[in-house]
Amino acid sequence: MHEAVRGLAIVAALWTTAAVAQVTVVTAAKVHTMDASRPLASAFAYDADGRLLAVGDRDAVLAGHPGARRIDLGDATVVPGLIDAHGHVANLGYTFLRADLVGTRSKAEVIERLRASAKGLAPGDWLLGRGWDQNDWPEKDFPTAADLDAAFPDRPVWLGRIDGHAGWANSAALRAVTRDLGGNWQPDGGRILRTGGRPTGVFVDAAMDLVDAVVPPVDEATATRALELGMKAAVEHGLTGVHDAGVSLADLRRYQRLADAGKMPLRIDAMADGDGESFGWLCEKGLYRHPGGRLQMRAVKLYIDGALGSRGAALIEPYSDDHDTHGLLVIAPTKLREVVARARGCGVQVATHAIGDRGNREVLDAFEQALGTHPGDHRWRIEHAQVLAPADLPRLAKLGIIASMQPTHATSDMPWAQDRLGPQRIVGSYAWRQLRDAGTRIALGSDFPVESVDPRLGLYAAATRTDADGLPAGGWRPEEKLTAFEALRGFTLDAAYAGFDEARVGSLEAGKRADFVVLAEDPLAIDPSGLKSLTVRATYVDGRPVFEAPASR
Amino acid sequence: MHEAVRGLAIVAALWTTAAVAQVTVVTAAKVHTMDASRPLASAFAYDADGRLLAVGDRDAVLAGHPGARRIDLGDATVVPGLIDAHGHVANLGYTFLRADLVGTRSKAEVIERLRASAKGLAPGDWLLGRGWDQNDWPEKDFPTAADLDAAFPDRPVWLGRIDGHAGWANSAALRAVTRDLGGNWQPDGGRILRTGGRPTGVFVDAAMDLVDAVVPPVDEATATRALELGMKAAVEHGLTGVHDAGVSLADLRRYQRLADAGKMPLRIDAMADGDGESFGWLCEKGLYRHPGGRLQMRAVKLYIDGALGSRGAALIEPYSDDHDTHGLLVIAPTKLREVVARARGCGVQVATHAIGDRGNREVLDAFEQALGTHPGDHRWRIEHAQVLAPADLPRLAKLGIIASMQPTHATSDMPWAQDRLGPQRIVGSYAWRQLRDAGTRIALGSDFPVESVDPRLGLYAAATRTDADGLPAGGWRPEEKLTAFEALRGFTLDAAYAGFDEARVGSLEAGKRADFVVLAEDPLAIDPSGLKSLTVRATYVDGRPVFEAPASR
Repeated sequence: MHEAVRGLAIVAALWTTAAVAQVTVVTAAKVHTMDASRPLASAFAYDADGRLLAVGDRDAVLAGHPGARRIDLGDATVVPGLIDAHGHVANLGYTFLRADLVGTRSKAEVIERLRASAKGLAPGDWLLGRGWDQNDWPEKDFPTAADLDAAFPDRPVWLGRIDGHAGWANSAALRAVTRDLGGNWQPDGGRILRTGGRPTGVFVDAAMDLVDAVVPPVDEATATRALELGMKAAVEHGLTGVHDAGVSLADLRRYQRLADAGKMPLRIDAMADGDGESFGWLCEKGLYRHPGGRLQMRAVKLYIDGALGSRGAALIEPYSDDHDTHGLLVIAPTKLREVVARARGCGVQVATHAIGDRGNREVLDAFEQALGTHPGDHRWRIEHAQVLAPADLPRLAKLGIIASMQPTHATSDMPWAQDRLGPQRIVGSYAWRQLRDAGTRIALGSDFPVESVDPRLGLYAAATRTDADGLPAGGWRPEEKLTAFEALRGFTLDAAYAGFDEARVGSLEAGKRADFVVLAEDPLAIDPSGLKSLTVRATYVDGRPVFEAPASR
Repeated sequence: MHEAVRGLAIVAALWTTAAVAQVTVVTAAKVHTMDASRPLASAFAYDADGRLLAVGDRDAVLAGHPGARRIDLGDATVVPGLIDAHGHVANLGYTFLRADLVGTRSKAEVIERLRASAKGLAPGDWLLGRGWDQNDWPEKDFPTAADLDAAFPDRPVWLGRIDGHAGWANSAALRAVTRDLGGNWQPDGGRILRTGGRPTGVFVDAAMDLVDAVVPPVDEATATRALELGMKAAVEHGLTGVHDAGVSLADLRRYQRLADAGKMPLRIDAMADGDGESFGWLCEKGLYRHPGGRLQMRAVKLYIDGALGSRGAALIEPYSDDHDTHGLLVIAPTKLREVVARARGCGVQVATHAIGDRGNREVLDAFEQALGTHPGDHRWRIEHAQVLAPADLPRLAKLGIIASMQPTHATSDMPWAQDRLGPQRIVGSYAWRQLRDAGTRIALGSDFPVESVDPRLGLYAAATRTDADGLPAGGWRPEEKLTAFEALRGFTLDAAYAGFDEARVGSLEAGKRADFVVLAEDPLAIDPSGLKSLTVRATYVDGRPVFEAPASR
């Protein structure tokens, strides 16, 4: 271990001395620059600091930089580093530290995975997990505490649903909650499921706080490890940037320490997590960027409603498959307006989660009021922007609001979305093309770990609107498809724009950072059905590899 | 013949009596309505007059119209009638009346086709043809009169090049020209090719007038026949509307007589052919629509420059493959402004051919000046909008100008367009996606007979940007591709809009006309590579079939 560390130090020292004037020229079969004035190139040069000096034709770039270090990528295609405009890094990291229940096909499989995960725990430690989805199980009903109690009679178990909008506890976890969960009371913005006045074990939206409050806090090392694991998974999939949609002040401090230590493999645009401590800090201290260039906080992430899968998204009219509910607002519109006005006052970008047409309308109304007649370059965002009333579709462009959308949400939700919404409302839902046509800028992302962190799946979903098996043939509501190029732009230049970052990243142009991904295939030349299996050979940030696939060495 | 006519009359009489209250319900696997509020349906109903009464789900439409006549299209897909926003109907018709030389691979093949075509002619009749392209022949040089003289020593032969920008005469035709074609003089805006001071037989651009002037005029019956044949070819390919880009007053009269006689199988939006007789009539008499609803004239077609293939398109900087030429303006900018101001004064829509970046800029400047600060709902158009300076790309949307573009021009020109334009200018050329992103409405067409009248080829070119063999893989400058849906919208709703016709046609909605196409495949579900071979089973205008494929009967 000591030897290795010393070896690294020597390499670093050599790099430092040799690199002062060292320029790198990368040549490849194709470079899709995302620069409209030169979309296609075959080479680019950057300096030792990772700043692009030139992008152009192979011969010209090589001739312009004699003596440069050369990286010849052969038949590979280079695209700008991919940016996920909406992910949750710590939560992604915890999927590696906790039980991962994504894709379980039955409760029996859940129990099986939980048993494996519990092996490393001390007696009495909470068993945490996430990713279950009762829609994938034969019975499709919400599970209960009893389903877990046989396997885990004493150890508290607490499991988040795939969308993060519901949690499933066993009886040991219920016993840990001090407040009496029986009766018929409900917390604001949440719901305790009960039968006969007794909690079943499932908690929806804000009701999850009741259990979360008694889960022992993670220690500092684990919390930092989660961020590191989340970032590692991101770069392994070609991401060079993530907009982390909801970061506590404690996590921001952890990121800062990692950034100070040079341990950020990619760029994190951290959004303060709601109207709390980190927003207070941001509003008071002003927009933040770490001097290393890989960490910034300039936005606050708010919520107006829940999710469609759990019927928490706020709709104007009742759910088509449950006429008794309109979903729910998780914040009062007046309160939203207050927070938004405060953000406006201190120059903080606002990114608000809105899924239902009621939720989106409330956010548009609040944004419109706060932005006033001289909106300036605000770049406020609606996260998900999933279901919009047709009349509201043009409002985003008019107000200069960015739609931050997740293509894989559409393909995950398509089997049941029309049941929830009916044939009229479905028309304004997942409406990428209509929003683009109205002039809206769309930043793309995944909402990982709700969906996979893998941006190839997002590109694929955007350009095909089909599931992994290519169904339905031709895509679900194919009129809303994006071209492969548009999908790529959503994950590069337009995501960068949504983070006020387009002068630094998002395209390969002289003066910007050398953040790029090396692909074995050309994503704009292959059939879109192949986007999900693109081969990521390497990911570079600031001109240095942060991931190299074993096969490419 | 008499029997057949009488039969038809009886059918018509029956129809009239029976049809008063007769409603038709069409059911199909899928109906892509192009109505954003209900993109997908499975049935529609229309009255005896061809007016849509309802579009929706099969069961609801059938239940709402008991006793209706039913047309069950089974597994077929219905799309709104396709509209070619830029074609030349008479010229298309003449390709059936004259020798069609499109696709000839050698001069020998030209002679062969000419011999076949000459069989029906009287001695001394001119043999006319069009469609040759020396680039498709082994020698690639311009042909000469001598190439034709052996086969046609006495009969005058006069053959237009594929792009209409050059003509090829034999010696008998040269002898018919009264003016001495020898020497070194050249006509304004044209060029007589010569060797040793003697004409070779090829005439470029305005020089073609010298021969055209001595071709005997076509008789009235032939001129009308050309329109009929052009329209027939259009409906056989699924077109229900054509914007005829340049119609003389004589041809408008012919169209009117056909419309009076109920012999218009589809809708013609006739544009007056330049600053001439028909524009004068239009400006004086006001916008025209035939009471039958299948003929209108409300626009004037102007030209600012030539074509890229013959280096006639006006460029700001010299041609990249001929530094001595910038191309040419075919009208002085001051004159263009005069005509445009006149059109503005009498409420006539202006559609101006512009190919080069200089041409497009001149048109944008002229339009901007004429439209002033209160432009209103003018729908002025740039035809082709082929090469734009990047700074001019956003101007179309800003001024509300429609880009009337031809996808097949891009795929025909792609082998040599970058040679003409160089790597910088190519970026603003055939820039469908950039124009769409800037908010421009794009109406699609073919420019038939310069390209094929077949709109399937346009849909294919728009969504693939490849040639018929699927090359280059992934498409030429794939960042500019349209989705199949956008391509279909360009040939339906957006083309209708460009003709002020979206309240009547372009989508299938109650109140609009029952113009539709029956396809064996779903153009939005198949791979875009299959768009070129969609099966058109039938074409309906005003609810009645104007074309039915033999196999579908």
